Amino acid sequence: MQFDTILEKVKSFLRDELLPIEATLRHQAWEEKLPLLNQLRDKVKDLGLWTPQIPQHYGGMGLNVAQFGAISEILGASPYGHFCFNCQAPDAGNMEILLEFGTEEQKEKYLLPLLAGEIRSCFAMTEPGYAGSNPVNMGTIATKNGDNYVLEGHKWFATGADGAAFAIVMLLTDPEGGNPYQRASQVIVPTNTEGFELVRNIPIMGDVGGGWESHSEILISQCHISRSHLLGEEGSGFTIAQKRLGPGRIHHCMRWLGICERAFDMMCERAATRELGHGKRLMDQQTIQNWIAESRAEINAARLLVQDAAHKIDTIGAYRARTDISIIKFYCAKVLQDVLDRAIQVHGALGITDDTLLSFWYRHERGARIYDGADEVHKTRVAKQILKQYASR
Amino acid sequence: MQFDTILEKVKSFLRDELLPIEATLRHQAWEEKLPLLNQLRDKVKDLGLWTPQIPQHYGGMGLNVAQFGAISEILGASPYGHFCFNCQAPDAGNMEILLEFGTEEQKEKYLLPLLAGEIRSCFAMTEPGYAGSNPVNMGTIATKNGDNYVLEGHKWFATGADGAAFAIVMLLTDPEGGNPYQRASQVIVPTNTEGFELVRNIPIMGDVGGGWESHSEILISQCHISRSHLLGEEGSGFTIAQKRLGPGRIHHCMRWLGICERAFDMMCERAATRELGHGKRLMDQQTIQNWIAESRAEINAARLLVQDAAHKIDTIGAYRARTDISIIKFYCAKVLQDVLDRAIQVHGALGITDDTLLSFWYRHERGARIYDGADEVHKTRVAKQILKQYASR
Amino acid sequence: MQFDTILEKVKSFLRDELLPIEATLRHQAWEEKLPLLNQLRDKVKDLGLWTPQIPQHYGGMGLNVAQFGAISEILGASPYGHFCFNCQAPDAGNMEILLEFGTEEQKEKYLLPLLAGEIRSCFAMTEPGYAGSNPVNMGTIATKNGDNYVLEGHKWFATGADGAAFAIVMLLTDPEGGNPYQRASQVIVPTNTEGFELVRNIPIMGDVGGGWESHSEILISQCHISRSHLLGEEGSGFTIAQKRLGPGRIHHCMRWLGICERAFDMMCERAATRELGHGKRLMDQQTIQNWIAESRAEINAARLLVQDAAHKIDTIGAYRARTDISIIKFYCAKVLQDVLDRAIQVHGALGITDDTLLSFWYRHERGARIYDGADEVHKTRVAKQILKQYASR
Amino acid sequence: MQFDTILEKVKSFLRDELLPIEATLRHQAWEEKLPLLNQLRDKVKDLGLWTPQIPQHYGGMGLNVAQFGAISEILGASPYGHFCFNCQAPDAGNMEILLEFGTEEQKEKYLLPLLAGEIRSCFAMTEPGYAGSNPVNMGTIATKNGDNYVLEGHKWFATGADGAAFAIVMLLTDPEGGNPYQRASQVIVPTNTEGFELVRNIPIMGDVGGGWESHSEILISQCHISRSHLLGEEGSGFTIAQKRLGPGRIHHCMRWLGICERAFDMMCERAATRELGHGKRLMDQQTIQNWIAESRAEINAARLLVQDAAHKIDTIGAYRARTDISIIKFYCAKVLQDVLDRAIQVHGALGITDDTLLSFWYRHERGARIYDGADEVHKTRVAKQILKQYASR
Repeated sequence: MQFDTILEKVKSFLRDELLPIEATLRHQAWEEKLPLLNQLRDKVKDLGLWTPQIPQHYGGMGLNVAQFGAISEILGASPYGHFCFNCQAPDAGNMEILLEFGTEEQKEKYLLPLLAGEIRSCFAMTEPGYAGSNPVNMGTIATKNGDNYVLEGHKWFATGADGAAFAIVMLLTDPEGGNPYQRASQVIVPTNTEGFELVRNIPIMGDVGGGWESHSEILISQCHISRSHLLGEEGSGFTIAQKRLGPGRIHHCMRWLGICERAFDMMCERAATRELGHGKRLMDQQTIQNWIAESRAEINAARLLVQDAAHKIDTIGAYRARTDISIIKFYCAKVLQDVLDRAIQVHGALGITDDTLLSFWYRHERGARIYDGADEVHKTRVAKQILKQYASR
Repeated sequence: MQFDTILEKVKSFLRDELLPIEATLRHQAWEEKLPLLNQLRDKVKDLGLWTPQIPQHYGGMGLNVAQFGAISEILGASPYGHFCFNCQAPDAGNMEILLEFGTEEQKEKYLLPLLAGEIRSCFAMTEPGYAGSNPVNMGTIATKNGDNYVLEGHKWFATGADGAAFAIVMLLTDPEGGNPYQRASQVIVPTNTEGFELVRNIPIMGDVGGGWESHSEILISQCHISRSHLLGEEGSGFTIAQKRLGPGRIHHCMRWLGICERAFDMMCERAATRELGHGKRLMDQQTIQNWIAESRAEINAARLLVQDAAHKIDTIGAYRARTDISIIKFYCAKVLQDVLDRAIQVHGALGITDDTLLSFWYRHERGARIYDGADEVHKTRVAKQILKQYASR
Repeated sequence: MQFDTILEKVKSFLRDELLPIEATLRHQAWEEKLPLLNQLRDKVKDLGLWTPQIPQHYGGMGLNVAQFGAISEILGASPYGHFCFNCQAPDAGNMEILLEFGTEEQKEKYLLPLLAGEIRSCFAMTEPGYAGSNPVNMGTIATKNGDNYVLEGHKWFATGADGAAFAIVMLLTDPEGGNPYQRASQVIVPTNTEGFELVRNIPIMGDVGGGWESHSEILISQCHISRSHLLGEEGSGFTIAQKRLGPGRIHHCMRWLGICERAFDMMCERAATRELGHGKRLMDQQTIQNWIAESRAEINAARLLVQDAAHKIDTIGAYRARTDISIIKFYCAKVLQDVLDRAIQVHGALGITDDTLLSFWYRHERGARIYDGADEVHKTRVAKQILKQYASR
Repeated sequence: MQFDTILEKVKSFLRDELLPIEATLRHQAWEEKLPLLNQLRDKVKDLGLWTPQIPQHYGGMGLNVAQFGAISEILGASPYGHFCFNCQAPDAGNMEILLEFGTEEQKEKYLLPLLAGEIRSCFAMTEPGYAGSNPVNMGTIATKNGDNYVLEGHKWFATGADGAAFAIVMLLTDPEGGNPYQRASQVIVPTNTEGFELVRNIPIMGDVGGGWESHSEILISQCHISRSHLLGEEGSGFTIAQKRLGPGRIHHCMRWLGICERAFDMMCERAATRELGHGKRLMDQQTIQNWIAESRAEINAARLLVQDAAHKIDTIGAYRARTDISIIKFYCAKVLQDVLDRAIQVHGALGITDDTLLSFWYRHERGARIYDGADEVHKTRVAKQILKQYASR
């Protein structure tokens, strides 16, 4: 398929298949909506659009980072877009890890059913007691015990843990190791392993959620797993996490832009139709016009930045593009929040109700400035990277 | 009681009685929490602090606007503060209206039980089909029919309608009247009147709420009420609404500042205790320091502005202070949102959970920039008022 | 020459020829610096880089809009960059007009010496009495008198009028014409024509300037010129002005980005070298790091937006790209001001002295948000263009 | 005199005496304008308004900090206001120092003629090689030599040094002292002392200025002065400097608010009179209305903050009010810059010319965010002060 054709098909799917039932889905619990979502997933498979980011050899479309970014923007317009195409976080990231670092056995057992959409997975990295901005600073520890690891720790914000078949857990295998970047490892933990306890789905911004639409707190206590569950080398946890970040960022940023475009469209539609009396409409207010113009400028700028970063990942690799990747994190997160805020304000009282998607995004994308490294952390990184060359002059 | 003593007592009540059970209250449904709240209300009565904004003749403390503002800031620190003192919106505003415009019969029937805390009430002004920024632009109409009015209309965002004994409804009694400011009237409608139907509690920012903690949509259809339910003169609806706004704004702005102070305190506490590794804490980050300093400056500035406006209302009256009243609306709403946003960011992932109050406020005070006239409307009003004297030179 | 080679040569010229004498030039009056500048111009001619934006047939390099944009960014790093290459405003715009609308005689007499760098010119559009945002709203009028026009009017902000050989004057030839967009025309007025009086060089942000580096006020009174001085058709003044805007905007925006990059470089250099005591440098301050990261993000975003707009002008034409062109106007002007402001702040007291270029740009680029249509006007245009499709649904 | 009467008289003086000749003064060199200014000074003396901030015993009006703040706002409306009343920086600060720390001989020789307006003075603290935010970090050193000090150093930004009779110089008398806050001292240096050389008036934002309206670079080399020129104790330089800061900040902040009010007035006047065509004026644009409303809110807030801080200085002293004093520094400097920026934008092209005062302030008040401690430094201080109590809990 030509890439343009692919884009067209994805757009049509959204418009014709997903959006018409989105309102229904929005007000259902996860278990209720799953049958409908699975029907949509089957249609996506039939259309040959399944797991677009995965190599063709594994049943995907083999798109590169820039191409998948374009898909991701389209899918981002709906909270269920990515799920329908089986390229939703955190599963998409876990697929990547397993593809690159998984043993044949791990791939067989975890990757294939994940790719097939038969199971879901989660990624357990963040801990309540440790600042997320320091990826080697954590309290979950794996102690070797014969052929096993014994895990102890406390995680939270494990998206989709509720109902997941397995977790990829980031933890320390060498807590006192001289090189802090080699202290951590990643291991696969089937969620039904004894000692791996989902404490609760964390209520976030008013929603406790369920299934894929939840973020769990997990207590790990005397949890024994075979060392064959290790991903890659021992001590490579940080490296693996880094690998995942570049394409993941493109995915998220383009998803945010999908949200932005839809919110922008809603804002314009509302401005153009809302009567103010005296024959005036909201669109005649210059303040509203300013918001529309500024939003348009910022969304366009953000997209160009992300496309540019994606292109760099595809050509020079994520490591050498890391400054660009950090830049899009904080730039796009800000645009997202600003556009949503303006769209809500244009909608007035309606904007704060749950009658539109704006409130959902306003609440659930507030995290965008926090997860994957708070924006402030990325700014510092960008500056330090730039200043290196000046300091050494 | 000296006013300083009053302030001390109110602070102690918050600290010793309300805050210790606040977390329990937060996670209960309205009906569950009511018994606890009523116990607190009884304590407030015993302390002689009941309905502080109401004249002593009616059982209150007779505080002026500036004094009640100071109380309101303290109470604002908790979502239940005002309710415990029976000075919560919208009842406090309705009390004011009934005090000034109610007939003896109306006072007997509606005001006294309201003052006693035996019933609750709501205020139905906003309509989904009409922009809220134009208070004489509405679709709810009262047609005279003998001694009755027949009401038809559609309202929403009637806070506390769920469980309220009566509503004060803003509607048009003279839809085609030459002077648009004399088209509207306010009438009392007992909520059990036939044709007055609470359609739903509107889900707002993730919460559908219940009881006082809800905002309802109301359909009014063939609703007959006696004309004795009219408040003040026919055609005085706009004037009455205006009367209510000045003190109401002080109430809200000071309540917001109460929220700001508590969020500020949480932000500082978090910054001072959150470890980042390497012996550093969040408070060592200059970005966090900037937020703290800026928040301190803005909260202080906001309070001084509100106190100044309150003093003006007390001395020259709300009408002549209307520019100041509009200024505090948009200034404080912005400070509130900015401070909450920073406090959340400082809390990181914790900040977006419902484990702290920050998420509650972030969601439920987003409306602050919208209700009682969107900030944009107030800016325009302030400017026009100022520009008048220049244009006529 | 390959375009990459061209870029390299332009960069080398800046670095090796212009920057070393820039400080000298900065503190000289126009007449003093002209000999040095003319030497540089001769070198540019020798390098084959003269008038890069002009067709090869006319002695230029024939670059398209996107390519000239890339050159313009490099040249923008110095206040004298464009002048050395004879592609400075307003002459570059006047060359464009004459190329497209000039008669053979006009080209012979005005265009050729302009291209050769033998004369300078100016463009007289803005009037003190009329808002610049409305290009058909002006008071300068040409009345026909036999074969002549008699001109009356008052212009200002005619850049480079001091010492110019001729002006292109925008004026009304049909003040009461039914179609307001056909009221204006453009005419060539030799500056030595009787009745064309340069009143003063306007002191702008502390500098009265001189020669090309000045902006003049001009009184036109009983000024007779032959009708052969008309450019294009009578009534086409607005159309011609529009033609000029698209490429002109790319030119300015890329020039601004050249300024941004140099200011950014100065900011980083200063941050990396300025000692604060206690072994700390400015670069260790997180606030400074934030400014550097945000500036990098914004400059990158701005450049991508401008490149995208330039590409659109080259492919679909300036008219269809007009929304993009308006967007880069206000977006880039804001980035420019923000970056300069941060660079100054990082320089501390030094930043407000005239010892660096920062103060020069801070002062002389404040106009960027005003000229060629205030940013506010462009925002309104963008919004109206976007809202058209929504309003007509 | 009643304080209200004083305020009225000061206002009248500005309106009737100073403003009518302000435009003349603006375009004269310092030496040219001095005769006119001295005439105005004589009138101020005649009105009994001379040196309002100075105790009556010394011929002033004995106003407290809050009262002088109110005067300072009125005077701030004109660049020459404070000079006419002999309460201009840096002389006012030097008077304070001499009053509190001067010996009888020093008072006789330096303070009395300063109070009389017969001489001017300067304050030499800032050094090009040291960050201004650290007041004990400097390179100017006084070495004892018998009864003399021998001074070596390099200062700049000594306001009014050109034509001053003496300088108060901050320098190190004990460069290696254990307590860094006791390393510095302040000494009086007559400007005609050998070895005290005014190198140049620094060109700042386009103006090199002259006399009181200049800021000089000073080289101090083998400069011998008697030790009787020491102010206060040796090692008390930092303490003296701190003393000066509180009231000085009120002075500057209120002066800035005077500028803000005048710029605000100009902005409104312009908005109300500038025609846009089609029967519209600038004031009809909502963006302009927003700027006016926001400016009004911010100026009001700033004034209340400064008045509150002044009141605290008068009651609890500058040291205990230091957080408030830091807050008004950065808050007011931002308001000043924002209001000026908006006023310029409303004036369009006129705003960047030197035909109005806006350009003057835009250029010369850019330093407000830098001098007396960059805003960033004050934010950090405020935060650290606040966080202290949290960190120690």
